[in-house]
Amino acid sequence: MEKLYEGKAKVIYPGPETGVVRVYFKDDATAFNGQKRAQIAGKGVVNNQVSAALFRYLEAHGIPTHFIRQLSEREMLVKQVQIVPLEVIVRNRTAGSFSRRYGVEEGRVLPYPLVEFSYKNDALGDPLIYDDAALALGLVNGSELARIKELALKVNALLKEYFAQRNLELIDFKLEFGRLLHSAAPTDERGAIVLADEISPDTMRLWEMGTGEKMDKDRFRRDLGGVEEAYQEVLRRVQAAPSA
Amino acid sequence: MEKLYEGKAKVIYPGPETGVVRVYFKDDATAFNGQKRAQIAGKGVVNNQVSAALFRYLEAHGIPTHFIRQLSEREMLVKQVQIVPLEVIVRNRTAGSFSRRYGVEEGRVLPYPLVEFSYKNDALGDPLIYDDAALALGLVNGSELARIKELALKVNALLKEYFAQRNLELIDFKLEFGRLLHSAAPTDERGAIVLADEISPDTMRLWEMGTGEKMDKDRFRRDLGGVEEAYQEVLRRVQAAPSA
Repeated sequence: MEKLYEGKAKVIYPGPETGVVRVYFKDDATAFNGQKRAQIAGKGVVNNQVSAALFRYLEAHGIPTHFIRQLSEREMLVKQVQIVPLEVIVRNRTAGSFSRRYGVEEGRVLPYPLVEFSYKNDALGDPLIYDDAALALGLVNGSELARIKELALKVNALLKEYFAQRNLELIDFKLEFGRLLHSAAPTDERGAIVLADEISPDTMRLWEMGTGEKMDKDRFRRDLGGVEEAYQEVLRRVQAAPSA
Repeated sequence: MEKLYEGKAKVIYPGPETGVVRVYFKDDATAFNGQKRAQIAGKGVVNNQVSAALFRYLEAHGIPTHFIRQLSEREMLVKQVQIVPLEVIVRNRTAGSFSRRYGVEEGRVLPYPLVEFSYKNDALGDPLIYDDAALALGLVNGSELARIKELALKVNALLKEYFAQRNLELIDFKLEFGRLLHSAAPTDERGAIVLADEISPDTMRLWEMGTGEKMDKDRFRRDLGGVEEAYQEVLRRVQAAPSA
């Protein structure tokens, strides 16, 4: 079947109708801007199902997303969007690139959640960007940027609570947003900003509450072992009833 | 004489009274975070005199600065400040690190001046930083940051006009701000934000109007030759009466 797009972790295929596409989740894992590559067995299955559960939860709490429905273990149906070329990172504690960039130890609680933007451009290494530069370069317009920040902070509040109920602390995560390419329903205006891409252990840092054990892609990035097990455990907790 | 501080291009000595220090401008030049080093004959003389003239001009137009008076060819007397650990870059056209970082050609006119911040930290390579991160890391507080942006944009408007009258286009420049350590006069409140450091061909990009010839430190960074001559020419134009 003809691919519309193939990324590092997903493939996009045409959907059954205009304005709808199919997302296939691969087991391929990359890190450090593609310099480290491997396969994580079952990762695509976990990420598809975790993403589907989180998109459903967020939609139920007023966040517009591209999600329509899960199709299979590795596939979901989503509304077609034009991706805004910004990686939107929300941080509750210092970790990863933030800690390296500013020389701050990992795990420091931030006084408030930080919303950080990178220009989504592999060739440039997804450089950090600030609001006025993103606007001046035409990556996004002012009302889109305000909407993206508003949604990112709401998603953070919702996901923090969601994972806390599953004994996981949400340290940080990366979101991508898109502009709806077609008006799919009376509430779905063409061009409207919706949450897109995926939300999974590939795109979040989740630490076990109490022990701080990493339950995310850092197990792969840092060769900590137990990568598949951590992904499976996150899926198990997402599928279980909340404990609190 | 005891040095209070020695930087790459300047030395700070105690002044004749509390709250006042002496700045000595060296000929030492560095680029690319200290990886390229040389001496530029007469640079210290040019930068001291250009900075003194620009601080006087800005003070006359309502910008608070650390400048008190010029002492000699290479020395000025300034109010002692605690430097805010941010490099404040104002950009009118794309150039330098902005062009490299975002893959944009040099010389594109920006739709409005950009105010960009780097965390002033040599060991980390002065990384780009955004408002909320600078606040969260305690580098600056909210009212200081607002004041710094306001002053940076006013300085840009004033310097653009100043150099245009001397047939030079102000492409971008770096400012540093400080908190006054002592109340030196009724208008000089302790902790007040004032423009500090220097403003010179080391810290500005100036292009000859019409030809676009570089009249600044890029002649050194990029081995364009005529480095000393460009610095002397900027000093000559600063000392001459404006042409328009």
